[in-house]
Amino acid sequence: MKVIETIDEMKRERAKLPGTVGFVPTMGYLHEGHMSLVRRAKIDNSAVVVSIFVNPTQFGPKEDFDKYPRDTERDLAMLEKEKTNIVFMPPVAETYPPGYDTWVSVEKLTQPLEGAIRPGHFRGVTTVVNKLFNIVQPTKAYFGQKDAQQALVLRKMAVDLNMNLEVVTLPTVRESDGLAMSSRNVYLKPRQRKQAVVISQALSLAYELYAQGETNANVIRQKMKELIEQQPLGKIEYISIASTETLEELETVNPPTLVSLVVIFGKTRLLDNIVLS
Amino acid sequence: MKVIETIDEMKRERAKLPGTVGFVPTMGYLHEGHMSLVRRAKIDNSAVVVSIFVNPTQFGPKEDFDKYPRDTERDLAMLEKEKTNIVFMPPVAETYPPGYDTWVSVEKLTQPLEGAIRPGHFRGVTTVVNKLFNIVQPTKAYFGQKDAQQALVLRKMAVDLNMNLEVVTLPTVRESDGLAMSSRNVYLKPRQRKQAVVISQALSLAYELYAQGETNANVIRQKMKELIEQQPLGKIEYISIASTETLEELETVNPPTLVSLVVIFGKTRLLDNIVLS
Repeated sequence: MKVIETIDEMKRERAKLPGTVGFVPTMGYLHEGHMSLVRRAKIDNSAVVVSIFVNPTQFGPKEDFDKYPRDTERDLAMLEKEKTNIVFMPPVAETYPPGYDTWVSVEKLTQPLEGAIRPGHFRGVTTVVNKLFNIVQPTKAYFGQKDAQQALVLRKMAVDLNMNLEVVTLPTVRESDGLAMSSRNVYLKPRQRKQAVVISQALSLAYELYAQGETNANVIRQKMKELIEQQPLGKIEYISIASTETLEELETVNPPTLVSLVVIFGKTRLLDNIVLS
Repeated sequence: MKVIETIDEMKRERAKLPGTVGFVPTMGYLHEGHMSLVRRAKIDNSAVVVSIFVNPTQFGPKEDFDKYPRDTERDLAMLEKEKTNIVFMPPVAETYPPGYDTWVSVEKLTQPLEGAIRPGHFRGVTTVVNKLFNIVQPTKAYFGQKDAQQALVLRKMAVDLNMNLEVVTLPTVRESDGLAMSSRNVYLKPRQRKQAVVISQALSLAYELYAQGETNANVIRQKMKELIEQQPLGKIEYISIASTETLEELETVNPPTLVSLVVIFGKTRLLDNIVLS
């Protein structure tokens, strides 16, 4: 496994790779969700490149860029075990040199949900992923369904800009009690962690209601809300039932429909979703 | 010479090209300025791709998109003569399908000069050129110095986004009296055309003043203005003496310095520049 820390060297090593290249962009502090992407990339492609880059431009001024959890040694050991070919860890100063001035935006798709709460977040994501795509030139790039809006936005970017790659979205990996894996779960205190299981339970409830014939989105939202409110440590930020194509809120479930929500425990925003299809 | 009218076919044909690819993006209605780019691309590369695409997203609502001059038959004959390998003419509806939502912006560099007069213009330019670069995957892309700000903005985009290509800028080609070649020169009535020579004369004056030791930018701007005002049909839109790096206006010429101006004749904006070095 090669660990590469400059953009030029990554470009040189990329040029030497024959066959297809699977790419898994991450912010590090890897968990089983990331590893499921790496394993699938390994199956699909001749070589796998994983990037570890905590991207400053996708964090708001009051967000957790400085505190975002990092453990490069552990990450590298996990990636080595999966026979990752290249780990790319570009420095921030080389990625955004002084006078950096170019931004890639997906517009309408980034207005609701996470985009409404975190202005500028997706502009940072699309810009850095565009740069990483140009550097790594993957055949396929892999993202987790847990960040559903991010996956939709990046696929939209790739299609709209006529990129020569496929954006692959893989299922959310969950802890045994159902909590979606996230690097930020480490922030949770034990009592918060215990109550956080209500998020996936609320999604299961949405699934069951829909399976039983309920298509009134307001009824589903209300029942999810009531379930979550039984856990006093969680504060609902949003519960959304939206078109998977436009992310516009729906009054009536019209599959495929994205049910997504954010519940805040302490200072930690926990995001999860399912698709009703 | 292959003429290709779909994005997918262009991608397929690109994949078959061995060696280096020179790319000249144009809006058609070709003149000697374009042809100088094509010839240089031919010298530098194994193959040359020229695109002809009048890009709607770089025209403002009150600009001349519908009236922009077009003559595909003549363009193709000129390109055939230069042994162009591929002419790519994507349809607008395939380039910007319904729901198109992704935009590439260079920010600070597009605020002054043309960007100030034509809001949104450069966003359209950088977006379409980004798309064309992804489709054509050139080794080098060629632009004319006449659109100095455009060339700087596109180079900035390519560097900032870590693209795998070089942006090459070639000298402005002029008519025998000095008028910079432009597809829009065809709009000029005979009397306007005659007086329009004052634009390149004003740039020559700036050059001479600077060569004689004048570094006060206001003095140079004022003398250019006085010269141009001797031609009653021309209306000065701006005269700029700016840093070639930031495009910020200068009080003192500090080479390399971009002297650029727009003079309007009737409804036709004529743009020209020189670099003092």
